[in-house]
Amino acid sequence: MAGIPYIHAAELTGGDRGLVVIIAVVAAAALGLAVVLARQVLAAGEGTAGMQKIAAAVQEGANAYLARQLRTVSVFAVVVFFLLFLLPADDWNQRIGRSLFFLIGALFSAATGYIGMWLAVRSNVRVAAAARAADERDAVPARHRAMRIAFRTGGVVGMCTVGLGLLGAACVVLVYAADAPKVLEGFGLGAALIAMFMRVGGGIFTKAADVGADLVGKVEQGIPEDDPRNAATIADNVGDNVGDCAGMAADLFESYAVTLVAALILGTVAFGDAGLAFPLLVPAIGVLTAMAGIFLVAPRRGDRSSMTAINRGFFLSAGISLVLVAVAAYAYLPASFAELSGIGDPEIAGHDADPRLFALAAVAIGIVLAALIQQLTGYFTEPSRRPVRDIGKTSRTGPATVVLAGFSLGLESAVYTALLVGLSVYAAFLLAGSTIMLALFAVALAGTGLLTTVGVIVAMDTFGPVADNAQGIAEMSGDVEGEGARVLTDLDAVGNTTKAVTKGIAIATAVLAAAALFGSYRDAIATAIGDVGVEKITDVTLLSLDISQPNNLVGLIIGAAVVFLFSGLAVNAVSRSAGSVVYEVRRQFRERPGIMDHSEQPEYGKVVDICTRDSLRELATPGLLAVLAPIAVGFSLGVGALGSYLAGSIAAGILMAVFLANSGGAWDNAKKLVEDGHHGGKGSEAHAATVIGDTVGDPFKDTAGPAINPLLKVMNLVALLIAPAVVTLSYGDDASGPLRALITAVALVIIVGAVYVSKRRGIAVEDDEEHEEVSAAPVPGR
Amino acid sequence: MAGIPYIHAAELTGGDRGLVVIIAVVAAAALGLAVVLARQVLAAGEGTAGMQKIAAAVQEGANAYLARQLRTVSVFAVVVFFLLFLLPADDWNQRIGRSLFFLIGALFSAATGYIGMWLAVRSNVRVAAAARAADERDAVPARHRAMRIAFRTGGVVGMCTVGLGLLGAACVVLVYAADAPKVLEGFGLGAALIAMFMRVGGGIFTKAADVGADLVGKVEQGIPEDDPRNAATIADNVGDNVGDCAGMAADLFESYAVTLVAALILGTVAFGDAGLAFPLLVPAIGVLTAMAGIFLVAPRRGDRSSMTAINRGFFLSAGISLVLVAVAAYAYLPASFAELSGIGDPEIAGHDADPRLFALAAVAIGIVLAALIQQLTGYFTEPSRRPVRDIGKTSRTGPATVVLAGFSLGLESAVYTALLVGLSVYAAFLLAGSTIMLALFAVALAGTGLLTTVGVIVAMDTFGPVADNAQGIAEMSGDVEGEGARVLTDLDAVGNTTKAVTKGIAIATAVLAAAALFGSYRDAIATAIGDVGVEKITDVTLLSLDISQPNNLVGLIIGAAVVFLFSGLAVNAVSRSAGSVVYEVRRQFRERPGIMDHSEQPEYGKVVDICTRDSLRELATPGLLAVLAPIAVGFSLGVGALGSYLAGSIAAGILMAVFLANSGGAWDNAKKLVEDGHHGGKGSEAHAATVIGDTVGDPFKDTAGPAINPLLKVMNLVALLIAPAVVTLSYGDDASGPLRALITAVALVIIVGAVYVSKRRGIAVEDDEEHEEVSAAPVPGR
Repeated sequence: MAGIPYIHAAELTGGDRGLVVIIAVVAAAALGLAVVLARQVLAAGEGTAGMQKIAAAVQEGANAYLARQLRTVSVFAVVVFFLLFLLPADDWNQRIGRSLFFLIGALFSAATGYIGMWLAVRSNVRVAAAARAADERDAVPARHRAMRIAFRTGGVVGMCTVGLGLLGAACVVLVYAADAPKVLEGFGLGAALIAMFMRVGGGIFTKAADVGADLVGKVEQGIPEDDPRNAATIADNVGDNVGDCAGMAADLFESYAVTLVAALILGTVAFGDAGLAFPLLVPAIGVLTAMAGIFLVAPRRGDRSSMTAINRGFFLSAGISLVLVAVAAYAYLPASFAELSGIGDPEIAGHDADPRLFALAAVAIGIVLAALIQQLTGYFTEPSRRPVRDIGKTSRTGPATVVLAGFSLGLESAVYTALLVGLSVYAAFLLAGSTIMLALFAVALAGTGLLTTVGVIVAMDTFGPVADNAQGIAEMSGDVEGEGARVLTDLDAVGNTTKAVTKGIAIATAVLAAAALFGSYRDAIATAIGDVGVEKITDVTLLSLDISQPNNLVGLIIGAAVVFLFSGLAVNAVSRSAGSVVYEVRRQFRERPGIMDHSEQPEYGKVVDICTRDSLRELATPGLLAVLAPIAVGFSLGVGALGSYLAGSIAAGILMAVFLANSGGAWDNAKKLVEDGHHGGKGSEAHAATVIGDTVGDPFKDTAGPAINPLLKVMNLVALLIAPAVVTLSYGDDASGPLRALITAVALVIIVGAVYVSKRRGIAVEDDEEHEEVSAAPVPGR
Repeated sequence: MAGIPYIHAAELTGGDRGLVVIIAVVAAAALGLAVVLARQVLAAGEGTAGMQKIAAAVQEGANAYLARQLRTVSVFAVVVFFLLFLLPADDWNQRIGRSLFFLIGALFSAATGYIGMWLAVRSNVRVAAAARAADERDAVPARHRAMRIAFRTGGVVGMCTVGLGLLGAACVVLVYAADAPKVLEGFGLGAALIAMFMRVGGGIFTKAADVGADLVGKVEQGIPEDDPRNAATIADNVGDNVGDCAGMAADLFESYAVTLVAALILGTVAFGDAGLAFPLLVPAIGVLTAMAGIFLVAPRRGDRSSMTAINRGFFLSAGISLVLVAVAAYAYLPASFAELSGIGDPEIAGHDADPRLFALAAVAIGIVLAALIQQLTGYFTEPSRRPVRDIGKTSRTGPATVVLAGFSLGLESAVYTALLVGLSVYAAFLLAGSTIMLALFAVALAGTGLLTTVGVIVAMDTFGPVADNAQGIAEMSGDVEGEGARVLTDLDAVGNTTKAVTKGIAIATAVLAAAALFGSYRDAIATAIGDVGVEKITDVTLLSLDISQPNNLVGLIIGAAVVFLFSGLAVNAVSRSAGSVVYEVRRQFRERPGIMDHSEQPEYGKVVDICTRDSLRELATPGLLAVLAPIAVGFSLGVGALGSYLAGSIAAGILMAVFLANSGGAWDNAKKLVEDGHHGGKGSEAHAATVIGDTVGDPFKDTAGPAINPLLKVMNLVALLIAPAVVTLSYGDDASGPLRALITAVALVIIVGAVYVSKRRGIAVEDDEEHEEVSAAPVPGR
């Protein structure tokens, strides 16, 4: 703890102001492109009346869910809006800006998710309709048309994500200049908080429906996926939209926003006045190349598979970004740190590196990291590669070995991904010599490097749920057959791996942003100590970030534990909600025997209602945990332990997130491998074993895993915001042990209460077995 | 980093020497009691010729395995013995003592495991024989006789564990006095290293056999467990002895030894000269109360269940320990720190606490922690409590929901256990005000408090495999029926929960010991810096333990990652070896059709050979990882990052270990619940679902989970041993970047090579499918 506030008020000079305005225009252009692409999507034909009817049901369910979710979440957002006013700030300008941009961040996050879902539920039927043409006319153009609609839908979501993220950050810089860092903390928190709720809620919805549908449909009744006789099919399709589409879009928007926040806060330390513009310049280049990338993703004749097109888009836009960033760095930055104006830290001002090369190298680390994660994730989750094939082989010895093989694959692949991310952080650290704040900025710049690929990533990912839904609509309506159905199966194919890649990149942004935000955290503590007066600090052990102190080790353990608890709660919520879905679907089959021979129609709405109710109910506990756990740790154990808490959550978070995502993806693809005819094919024992693996993986990969990314961001930003308050309440003139104890107690009581309530709900059972007598005597044990 | 070496040469005064001699005599008495108990066990009848034949086969298999394992491991031990000479030490006396006591630690660890197994394979048939008497005569005395034999076997192992641990530590103190801390590092490493190998190897053996036997026997052929027609049954029974018995005993011996090491190293800092004796006094009291506890565990008429007797033994011996520790503290320690001689740190010497109350409170924290872990683990794994009953309910919706429910239960229960341990560390920290080294000693004393319960814990745990084996022998020989069989089923009952409790306590010792060893780590670095000369330190960032530094965050992530990789490798090894067992058993059923109608006998030896070969082969990779990963991190990223590495491994380690142990225990008991007649009972769909859950849990709870405890100890001690070398090679007169790079490279190459080789083995397949064509094209994805 040097005790020197590093972050100084940076000025936005005339030239820089112009540059930021241009960046804002680029962001607006991205939004414009989104509108153009959306119009093209909507212009396509909507298919038969049967298809439209199903699509309408999905639209209705998705809208109803998202409207209720946003209503629930907005209560939470308003509470946080007011709580933010209680936290220290330099003046009311900062205080109001922080709360205001908290709301804007939240709004943008929700909007990204909503737009993505709005278009996806309209594009799904259009993709199905385009594929249907393959039955009637020449297959190849029909295939391309279907693909183009799906890709363009992804393009809209991608452009909204990067456009809104960049626009928001640019506006903060233009309006607040010197106060931008504090205001950006609010913006980031708003984005992350809403994204977390959308990830968790949508994730529970989609997997409760999916798991429930599979358990009764595929496993018990032996009817295919998306069979209209299954009462959970509409809910399953709604789930794809609210979870995989809306939740994912909000999550990546949040990754984008928070990474920019970290880069801009540290930018003014490392690059002085230029630090407000340069971190925006990199993602602006990313926006331009993403625009190019989306068109490059357009499928060509001769592509071996859809994955070829996607890889082409990804690598080309990454390559172009790198070249353009080099040009921008050499055009915009001077040749030495001494020439940069407004650097407060003399160590940085006197640093002998070339800032242009430094910046380029840091950004390059991020871009290379994105490419490596893409390859690594592909290796572990693609059905043609050894790991998934190995899981496929274990299907011959039953479901237990499938689960074990996927479990160990997930753990291992998480290690490699974590090492890659760690290596990137270390490389960024080496760039800066031993100047810690400069090293942290290098980490943040690597984050912006990662961001340049986000536009294409989102476009790739949205493709998945749209294609999945299109197939569902085709299957349920029965109006698409033969070649058309094959086209849709093919499109659906690309989803699993792209989804795993997206999650890998998202969690990498969390680690880079969190690592960089440690810089702001150190600074916030140092500033607060300065405000309080160093002479009043009685007990340094509560401020030190030294990990060998027992209190800090405890903070670290708690941080890692929160990640485990959050994951456990999310998986548990899905397994309980899926149980309710199973009983409802079974009930319908039992009470309406006509469903099986198509003479009666199942009540789809009931299942949608169950999923909606359960997922909104289960939302609160993980949300409260994320916000309140850092508050409890900070006010009780001090800011040192809170820092270790963050570090612990980062380390456990990246490992757990990747483990869950990759295990799930690999199980899913192992199932596809068997369905493709290996090890006995569909209907074999091996197939049943992989279906069980896939079902276990569902909440791993689509509920718990992806929600860890926004969780880390929320906890980091909450810690950053409360750190000054902790220092003031511990040592300042208003120091008050009882008040700190009260805050801790309130936070703990709410967390424990929420966990208790969510546990009490227990497991649904069909009949009145809840009161069944279970002997208290020990049961024979092995 | 204060830069002051805290650990001073302590003197062993005349009175203390006498005390330590008495402690050594207590330790020897424990060993004497072990001999007496063993004689009593061996005096019992050995049953029918059929039973003896089976017991002989199990004995032979277990002996053969352990002999081969010890041969393999001893190569490793010899290498480390010589490598230790290369590390810095003050003089040759230290150097030789360290290497010598490394060997003694290793030998004691192996001996504890070997003795436990030797007796268990002899006691199993005697327990079965005693139970058989229930068929012929009065049932009650027969039941008690069977139980008594099993408990006494546990008592022997318990007494060996604590006796050898205490004896070893006392000898080091008596012989080396001032040099004891350095020598103890060697002793601890030897114990931990061998225990890790025995845990990993035995764990893979036992679960490969168990999982393989269940997959073919129960699932495919529908024959009961331990059916003599199953070729894997003998291997399964051998596994119980080499894994659950020998591995567990070595592991708890190691926990005992390393905790004592940590307490003795810090003892001289906090309590001066008295610090060499007091940390031995607490476990010596534990030995005495454990002796009492083992007799108290003897079942009484009127006990509701065997668990009642065990709980009585545990709580009574914990309570008596607490009282005796209070007496010892007030009799032995003075009323103020100022009166303690030989304290080097002026802050501690001037501390205003009462050392007697301080010591008593710290020990009490450990004892209370043991009791709380016992209760918490019981809650999460006992079949009569809600969590396991909830898993039971999910069996109605199939195996996937069973796996998910157990998975989330494990994650949550790990969080509560980790928080309990964290709370204990924090409570110990608060005891010492803000004097860090004193706080660390308080943590170590809490560890010795935990130790007072180890004797009883081991006795409880050994009971499990013995009863399990007795049941196996009875079942296979067909000579025990009716009431006798019921007696054995009842005895077998207690196993699951006691096993989970043992693992919880073992991992808690790992965290306490590791947290305390941070004190020695800080000191080792400070001493090394002093030796090198502070003025030569050019880059402080490589020494700082500040967690907000990017390099340290990277260390932290790698530390957590190693725990994930280690767990993944262990689970993977079991799932692959179990596959080989499955194919072998299937082959025997196919090629010898007479097996099913008992006209032909299966070749049991083949399966034992497969398990032996596979587990020894899979041993190396996790072992090399544990030893070499800290070396690679330390020599490349520096001692600061190595410190964070340790912290990361501790946080991830406790969570992962408890998660794996409790998930596994809960799945197992959920299966028992169904077998007890709930949700459809044996043979129902629900039963099949819980059998799958149990099989998934097998390598969790008996291979990967328990091996994490010695893993953490090994990594901590390796880090502690190499830290001075890292500092010297970085800044000293012989500073050599290339040499550090070479050491790092060698370590990395060996790790990567080992992981690669173990991965290359891949999944066994029955026919020649390895070369099956798998399409490279993407397979339809969801």
